[in-house]
Amino acid sequence: MAGGWPDARFIARVGVSLPIVQAPMAGAGGSALAIAAARGGALASLPCGMATPEMVRREVETVRAAGVGPVNLNFFCHAMPAAPDDHAWRTRLAPFYAEFDVGDAPPPPLRVPFDAAMGDLVVALRPEVVSFHFGLPTADLLDRVRASGAMVIGNATTVDEARYLAGRGVDAIIAQGWEAGGHAGAFLPADPAERMGLFALLPQIVDAVEVPVIAAGGIADARGIAAAMMLGAAAVQIGTAYLRAPESLVSSMHRAALASEAAEHGVFTNLFSGGLARGLRNRLVETLGPIDPAAPPYPYASTALAPLRRAAEAKGDAGFSPLWAGQAARLGHDEPAEHLTQRLGREALALLAA
Amino acid sequence: MAGGWPDARFIARVGVSLPIVQAPMAGAGGSALAIAAARGGALASLPCGMATPEMVRREVETVRAAGVGPVNLNFFCHAMPAAPDDHAWRTRLAPFYAEFDVGDAPPPPLRVPFDAAMGDLVVALRPEVVSFHFGLPTADLLDRVRASGAMVIGNATTVDEARYLAGRGVDAIIAQGWEAGGHAGAFLPADPAERMGLFALLPQIVDAVEVPVIAAGGIADARGIAAAMMLGAAAVQIGTAYLRAPESLVSSMHRAALASEAAEHGVFTNLFSGGLARGLRNRLVETLGPIDPAAPPYPYASTALAPLRRAAEAKGDAGFSPLWAGQAARLGHDEPAEHLTQRLGREALALLAA
Repeated sequence: MAGGWPDARFIARVGVSLPIVQAPMAGAGGSALAIAAARGGALASLPCGMATPEMVRREVETVRAAGVGPVNLNFFCHAMPAAPDDHAWRTRLAPFYAEFDVGDAPPPPLRVPFDAAMGDLVVALRPEVVSFHFGLPTADLLDRVRASGAMVIGNATTVDEARYLAGRGVDAIIAQGWEAGGHAGAFLPADPAERMGLFALLPQIVDAVEVPVIAAGGIADARGIAAAMMLGAAAVQIGTAYLRAPESLVSSMHRAALASEAAEHGVFTNLFSGGLARGLRNRLVETLGPIDPAAPPYPYASTALAPLRRAAEAKGDAGFSPLWAGQAARLGHDEPAEHLTQRLGREALALLAA
Repeated sequence: MAGGWPDARFIARVGVSLPIVQAPMAGAGGSALAIAAARGGALASLPCGMATPEMVRREVETVRAAGVGPVNLNFFCHAMPAAPDDHAWRTRLAPFYAEFDVGDAPPPPLRVPFDAAMGDLVVALRPEVVSFHFGLPTADLLDRVRASGAMVIGNATTVDEARYLAGRGVDAIIAQGWEAGGHAGAFLPADPAERMGLFALLPQIVDAVEVPVIAAGGIADARGIAAAMMLGAAAVQIGTAYLRAPESLVSSMHRAALASEAAEHGVFTNLFSGGLARGLRNRLVETLGPIDPAAPPYPYASTALAPLRRAAEAKGDAGFSPLWAGQAARLGHDEPAEHLTQRLGREALALLAA
């Protein structure tokens, strides 16, 4: 056990002191969170799925200037359908528009898939790690990323997806369990009702592939890290626990919800993007139900929702905001990310050594 | 760590050598499985929810005659609605009745709740442990069980349910995760979409109650046992992994499905009893969909299904049989229950000591 960790492949390859990936969370984490987590020993991640190349470049420069070690750029690889007619969705939202006196507003940034321009940026910036959500980019784009020298990480929600990713030569695979907050990165056709909890998914993926496996979903304290190691993980990816760090970008309302009993009652919802993502109940979820067939396909549901969300938030109302949260949210604390990371590493090692 | 286990409260109280409860599985396990698992060091369990008092008495006598240690009797505590009009359900099944030329047949045994007669039996038999699924019996019945000297175990699918059980003085609580096969023992009103994976549920229940917690769902090998211990469990309950033992009562078709890739694609279904239970897809699930609102409420869906199931099974067709399975089914092996139990204990201790 190198350094006390049962499987040191991930930390050795990446060059971090702890087997912890600070999860890239679009809209919730930027360079400040990444730097603080990296100072604690984790792999710093920057979410790039809602950013322009120029924004990504600036964030990477900020992280690099802090001199905190390797950086992971996370991109989406979803198929991008043509913008749909979202009339039915706007009709559903109309009563809320009236209530909040929402007028016309410029559309917000959409979640967009990795493309040639981002590929050029990766080649130019040479991040140590590139991770992909919702599958992988086209073979030529993936080859460019690999040729840049980046370690490539894919995300699997099923054993089938892990086999697919391993067959395409990724260097590590995230096993994203049912418990994980935010968007499930499913990319092969499968009934969402079949999603596995991490307890079952993780060892089956470990058995199915040769590369190191990173456990994600429901891990918010040292117990979860130690448990993931027992199930064969080489590292863990932690998201929700970082949301309560002062360096995260979420609202005070979101923070309060994460610490409350509401965090025991999260659900998958398609209301905020059109894709299935795990978050806490709020007024929109309670009114429409977590799954509404009128929501346009991913990522387009966010467009009509954005001005309503903005108007409500201006009044201190998080009823129309995505309150992403994994199922272990209540295990977290209000704690700076550097301190949280160090504590998790120290406590997990103590558990594993006991 | 007494005997190498991080939390020895359960094994000390029950008087078993391993922190493993062989799960009571109605219809799938009887005294033969219980005896073999107990010989390996586990707590022997007998499912009583579909049995008559006379059947329970005989099974307990058989286990006691084997001299293998304490025995756990498991009972259901669901509310029993009046028998519903199941016309819509029978209409749904009519094409299959025609195909299999099913005629009238005597109704099969229903799942029935713990009652005064079973309470008398517990007082007479004095089992060392009594566990309840779907909540608890009435206060007076629960008092009788306690007064008999039995250790009482309740089953929680949410943190709220764990708090409820702790408030009623149970001696230990099963944390039943999303991954668990068979019937989810939910008993307080909650949206099934909120069910937590074991990774998130277990530590939150451990934090919420004082009594020992038994982890259930998705545990089928030593890695899962060690991981559950890291998350704070004092014991684990293992079901699916025992189904492939020669002592289990499941069909060869069920065994084959558990070992196949089909076991990666289980779902919750209400088709077999009316209540939500996790199993593998077969013809009935594929044809009607896993959830059919025409299925009568628990436990009555099984009545109209039983003769069809019997007719199909007689032809070697498991298309209408419940193929209960947890999400970690594929981690199991064809292995005698005594050997399986011993191996799990030995390997888990080795993992914890590494």
